[in-house]
Amino acid sequence: MGSALLSDLGTEIVIPVCAVIGIVFSLVQWFLVSRVKVSTEHAASSPTSNNGKNGYNDSLIEEEEGINDHNVVAKCADIQNAISEGATSFLFTEYQYVGIFMVAFAVLIFLFLGSVEGFSTRSQPCTYDKEKLCKPALANAIFSTLSFLLGAITSVLSGFLGMKIATYANARTTLEARKGVGKAFIVAFRSGAVMGFLLAANGLLVLYITINLFKLYYGDDWEGLFEAITGYGLGGSSMALFGRVGGGIYTKAADVGADLVGKVERNIPEDDPRNPAVIADNVGDNVGDIAGMGSDLFGSYAESSCAALVVASISSFGLTHDFTAMCYPLLISSVGILVCLITTLFATDFFEIKAVKEIEPALKNQLIISTVLMTVGIAIVTWTCLPSSFTIFNFGTQKVVKNWQLFLCVCVGLWAGLIIGFVTEYYTSNAYRPVQDVADSCRTGAATNVIFGLALGYKSVIIPIFAIAISIFVSFTFAAMYGIAVAALGMLSTIATGLAIDAYGPISDNAGGIAEMAGMSHRIRERTDALDAAGNTTAAIGKGFAIGSAALVSLALFGAFVSRAEISTVDVLTPKVFIGLIVGAMLPYWFSAMTMKSVGSAALKMVEEVRRQFNTIPGLMEGHTKPDYANCVKISTDASIKEMIPPGALVMLTPLIVGIFFGVETLSGVLAGSLVSGVQQYLHRTLVVHGTMPRSILRLVLPSMQGLLGRRDLNLTKQLLLVTPLAILSRTLQVHHSTFLSSSWQSSLLCLLPSLPLMVVCFLRSERRMPGKLRENVISPLVSMF
Amino acid sequence: MGSALLSDLGTEIVIPVCAVIGIVFSLVQWFLVSRVKVSTEHAASSPTSNNGKNGYNDSLIEEEEGINDHNVVAKCADIQNAISEGATSFLFTEYQYVGIFMVAFAVLIFLFLGSVEGFSTRSQPCTYDKEKLCKPALANAIFSTLSFLLGAITSVLSGFLGMKIATYANARTTLEARKGVGKAFIVAFRSGAVMGFLLAANGLLVLYITINLFKLYYGDDWEGLFEAITGYGLGGSSMALFGRVGGGIYTKAADVGADLVGKVERNIPEDDPRNPAVIADNVGDNVGDIAGMGSDLFGSYAESSCAALVVASISSFGLTHDFTAMCYPLLISSVGILVCLITTLFATDFFEIKAVKEIEPALKNQLIISTVLMTVGIAIVTWTCLPSSFTIFNFGTQKVVKNWQLFLCVCVGLWAGLIIGFVTEYYTSNAYRPVQDVADSCRTGAATNVIFGLALGYKSVIIPIFAIAISIFVSFTFAAMYGIAVAALGMLSTIATGLAIDAYGPISDNAGGIAEMAGMSHRIRERTDALDAAGNTTAAIGKGFAIGSAALVSLALFGAFVSRAEISTVDVLTPKVFIGLIVGAMLPYWFSAMTMKSVGSAALKMVEEVRRQFNTIPGLMEGHTKPDYANCVKISTDASIKEMIPPGALVMLTPLIVGIFFGVETLSGVLAGSLVSGVQQYLHRTLVVHGTMPRSILRLVLPSMQGLLGRRDLNLTKQLLLVTPLAILSRTLQVHHSTFLSSSWQSSLLCLLPSLPLMVVCFLRSERRMPGKLRENVISPLVSMF
Repeated sequence: MGSALLSDLGTEIVIPVCAVIGIVFSLVQWFLVSRVKVSTEHAASSPTSNNGKNGYNDSLIEEEEGINDHNVVAKCADIQNAISEGATSFLFTEYQYVGIFMVAFAVLIFLFLGSVEGFSTRSQPCTYDKEKLCKPALANAIFSTLSFLLGAITSVLSGFLGMKIATYANARTTLEARKGVGKAFIVAFRSGAVMGFLLAANGLLVLYITINLFKLYYGDDWEGLFEAITGYGLGGSSMALFGRVGGGIYTKAADVGADLVGKVERNIPEDDPRNPAVIADNVGDNVGDIAGMGSDLFGSYAESSCAALVVASISSFGLTHDFTAMCYPLLISSVGILVCLITTLFATDFFEIKAVKEIEPALKNQLIISTVLMTVGIAIVTWTCLPSSFTIFNFGTQKVVKNWQLFLCVCVGLWAGLIIGFVTEYYTSNAYRPVQDVADSCRTGAATNVIFGLALGYKSVIIPIFAIAISIFVSFTFAAMYGIAVAALGMLSTIATGLAIDAYGPISDNAGGIAEMAGMSHRIRERTDALDAAGNTTAAIGKGFAIGSAALVSLALFGAFVSRAEISTVDVLTPKVFIGLIVGAMLPYWFSAMTMKSVGSAALKMVEEVRRQFNTIPGLMEGHTKPDYANCVKISTDASIKEMIPPGALVMLTPLIVGIFFGVETLSGVLAGSLVSGVQQYLHRTLVVHGTMPRSILRLVLPSMQGLLGRRDLNLTKQLLLVTPLAILSRTLQVHHSTFLSSSWQSSLLCLLPSLPLMVVCFLRSERRMPGKLRENVISPLVSMF
Repeated sequence: MGSALLSDLGTEIVIPVCAVIGIVFSLVQWFLVSRVKVSTEHAASSPTSNNGKNGYNDSLIEEEEGINDHNVVAKCADIQNAISEGATSFLFTEYQYVGIFMVAFAVLIFLFLGSVEGFSTRSQPCTYDKEKLCKPALANAIFSTLSFLLGAITSVLSGFLGMKIATYANARTTLEARKGVGKAFIVAFRSGAVMGFLLAANGLLVLYITINLFKLYYGDDWEGLFEAITGYGLGGSSMALFGRVGGGIYTKAADVGADLVGKVERNIPEDDPRNPAVIADNVGDNVGDIAGMGSDLFGSYAESSCAALVVASISSFGLTHDFTAMCYPLLISSVGILVCLITTLFATDFFEIKAVKEIEPALKNQLIISTVLMTVGIAIVTWTCLPSSFTIFNFGTQKVVKNWQLFLCVCVGLWAGLIIGFVTEYYTSNAYRPVQDVADSCRTGAATNVIFGLALGYKSVIIPIFAIAISIFVSFTFAAMYGIAVAALGMLSTIATGLAIDAYGPISDNAGGIAEMAGMSHRIRERTDALDAAGNTTAAIGKGFAIGSAALVSLALFGAFVSRAEISTVDVLTPKVFIGLIVGAMLPYWFSAMTMKSVGSAALKMVEEVRRQFNTIPGLMEGHTKPDYANCVKISTDASIKEMIPPGALVMLTPLIVGIFFGVETLSGVLAGSLVSGVQQYLHRTLVVHGTMPRSILRLVLPSMQGLLGRRDLNLTKQLLLVTPLAILSRTLQVHHSTFLSSSWQSSLLCLLPSLPLMVVCFLRSERRMPGKLRENVISPLVSMF
């Protein structure tokens, strides 16, 4: 067993330094974005300040449009303010409600964990090493609650800051689009990077500081220390659930409302300022796709780190108190920040985007570059921080693992992410056969078209599932549950770049909206649309990462739960487990039913409000009067706050109810079932129903259609046949987009669901020692009747 | 351990007598149907022959229409002939291809099983009782192959006879509809009953005779006897897969082609004789919904009987050679035939349908009556045939079971079927809230409508899953895998009534088509439509039964496989099983992708052919020339024969490949995964995407719409908004209908998938003793590298 190269002191320095570098880098990016001015008084000087940097050939790159139109700048500033205010007010309202819930949940956690030893302050024998004394359960309860709250707050912070920079950058992207597509791309991408780096670095830093502070009390009791730390992950993923569901309902209600009444019924263009729901729609992009997604990925990230740490603490790393090896998950993330930093420079500084067709390759290259560099980074971390051989806790036994095996575990996760991403792209981009085939089937009408589309969606699940299965198999076989946790971390190690790409999409979308609302020229709208289009395809890649990591994290947490519950086998051949499996597989459907019903109700209200305004406000359609934007924002806010409770309750209560009434065996069946079925459903929907595919098809068919219509040949019937499915497609697009949303929520479901049982197990243990045992007196006799 | 009341001789008499009663009853029904004459020469005398029975008040019940119009009768006869010929020719083509495959598969089975002991003819020690000598493996191979072929032939026969009676009854239903809805109902229902009773009685009789013949050779070696009998189930479900997939592609291609070009593009009514695909469409109903469904349910029925028998043979029934108790599954089916016979009389003789609104309750009452009577029947069989206490084989141990516990196992299956059926009805009938809510959401447009619809579909999965979970839990806990097998049998015990209701639907559908094509009056079409509508709702109930029983059968077979493979636990916490689980859960998606792609390709060809005919045949739209029906029939036939191979291969090869290359642990994971995920997908799609729900909504919204349009008020916009989603709905209806199909195929997937591994296990065993071991030399070293 060789010793690691990196000393404990080195570890103590490397991690915070990397985190601080990430934060500084994101602040620098923010500063660079802020140099584009949107306020009217500075607008005149803005070209000068730009010239100061590298503006000497600005006018040579592309034709500049309306640079000095103060009126447009003022309008942009107004719209940006409205969006920013709407988003901020929604998030504050949301956080108020969720805050109350979080405090209540924190109290519950404290009571659950504290009651294990009857709130005793005496030290107790450790769970895994009965000979040693560990800190009292009360201390664990206090510190778990603390780390839970810290996780929730960090999640809120990540989402909120992301939303802030996004609403700060949208109008700036629009204004830069006047100078050319390359400029606009850099602003949008930099803003995405701000969010990505802030999230990754903050998450790491807070976790690192928490560990060090807790260590002051826990000292050598690492088992207790890292068990308390798991609260951090639970806090993150609880917030993620509400962020995703609340923000998701908001954005989809506004989207459907705006498009259905505006685009379909009134036949006005997207983002037209006459549409009362247009501000709400743009706010939705920021609270749903930015803040919600940020919370979600932070949740996965925190959960996988915590799962790895808690397993490591009862493996040889923890038993021999090897701090550097213990921090292996954190070191991976630290190196990830540096790797992403270099990767970002490739997009913003090393090369310059000059044409629309370069945007998508640039974004794709980001993923490839970061993955290749990260492979090197993982190798460095592995060989400097880990002893050449060590043992990992594996359901009661200790399994010997070599450092190269752990390297492969992390890599298999990292590369599986990339493969899933590119398969997703293959099935959703109009550059490849699958989408072209589906587009071709438009010839014979909507029905065949939709059949082909759905079939393609089902088919697209196959390779990603094999990729996930292989990474599970490899990492599981090499290093049991620890292997799976680090595989998930490997997939998430390039999170900063992934988030930058993801956040870039909604920012460009917003920029397009602002261009339309501010009445800017058609050319500028075209440029922002090109940015948006590239973002849509790469967003699908990002979604592949999200689900892959969620699946792995969820499995790792499942393993942690099983270890904690001291179950050594989860045998499908017992009725308790099997019914758990089948009911668990139903949960994602139930969850979808609830979230979709919520979206439906909220959208109904929005549609009615928008119709009411169009019908009752005179001069609205002619553009003489302004619609009542605020009312639409309020409807979306109220509806999403109200509607996010039932799905949240389903996810939170299921583990509690199943665990308490049916026991841990059934609960483990439920977890396995929902994991397996949720992944499939999510993948299928991300790929098809997401709307990326329909969008790609539209983009493919429309130009050839316009060519046909332009020639105005006699074969009008043929054209009509082509138009029919397209008309339906473009409408169902809205629907698909909404149903997709409920699928992306499943990644939060996947993360949170197995995280909760960790708490349940503790409760079940404590409950055995509590008076008035509901279970033993009522439930157990009932169950044992059979 | 008390002895049973029914002697072995009694059993030997009761079973064949019940089967023969079933066959005679179905022949009587056929005779009653045949009394309606369709040939022109007898048409004149037909009213007389009807009057001979109970026609004295025919003219009083409802106004008779065109009874004596010979022209119409001749037309009906022509159309019936065309449909019958198309269906027969398709089935013969299909059976030719499938026949070749079946022979090849039979040879494979023979080689697999025969090679276990190197084709030795010496007796060998038994698998479960090593002290006794059992028949040689070669004998097992021969008899398994024989019973496999018998199962396949019985399945073919069931499907073929069902198709024959259905194409015999469709025109007769149309003609009876001239006399009133009650008369037409009785003809359609009687014909459904012919199919139901023929199938149930044939299946039972062939199985019974096979057991008795095999017993002549096997004597006391019941273990070998009933293992050879399992081939019967495999034969049935292999045919079911091809019947379902082949027939399904046929019917959906024709349906989409006919509706898309005819209804949507050319704006001609459904079943209009000018539509070239109209005959193919009607043929499709018979080969897909009648012959295919018949094969499918026969497959489930045979599999559940065989699963129960094989487990019983190694339990105390088999060990003590208690023949009556061994035949418990067959006795349940025998009593089921008698119960269904009485139930049928309630619909055809005890009461008479006088109005349209009585049809649906009459069909629903059939289910309730048969379930209540069957409960009594099960009680009688249980207490007369079983000893009061016995043991059941439970993964290596013997579990003590009481007879009342087994009674509860069968009942829980029976009643779970009814509950699933009624929940399905609640979610798909326009008489209840869910569908009304969805219809209400049409107010705000297609998007909200589809969101609500999908949400409802997800929600509808919840209760059926709990019903299945509870029946699994109860039957599993009481009597292990035997309990699950008999629970499935309980659900299928009323199969004759279920099939009668199911087959009634397509017959009414065809009758409507014939009325339209023969140019009969609007009133007659209305009557057949009313019959069809009632059939649609109750068909959804029948689908609930099908999936419930498929889930249980599949689990029972899974259990049989696990027992045979000598696996005692299937631990989710091992990487091999877990990746099996996740890949298995993907299989239904993969299968759907293939079948939907097949439907899409076939429909594409059909659409092009129909368009070509409309464009190139002069005078077709005006009704002067007849279209080329035969060409459309040929296209559907060729496409479905070609396209059914890949999905079939997927299902057949997966167990072989997984078993051979990855071992039985992974295979059991795959089976559990596909079972769990397939059930969810099937339920969800049956309920929503089936089209029953959209149809119910259309029926609900259309009248109120027509009221609005009638008044011609000024609020035209509002009406247009109502029309928009409906137009989309009615079009997507066609699509939904097609996607549903691929879901109903999953019931055959569910049955076949776990049945195959029984063969694989034998192969794996034999392969260990074979030279040139691929696995040990290539695969195992590769796998053990990890």
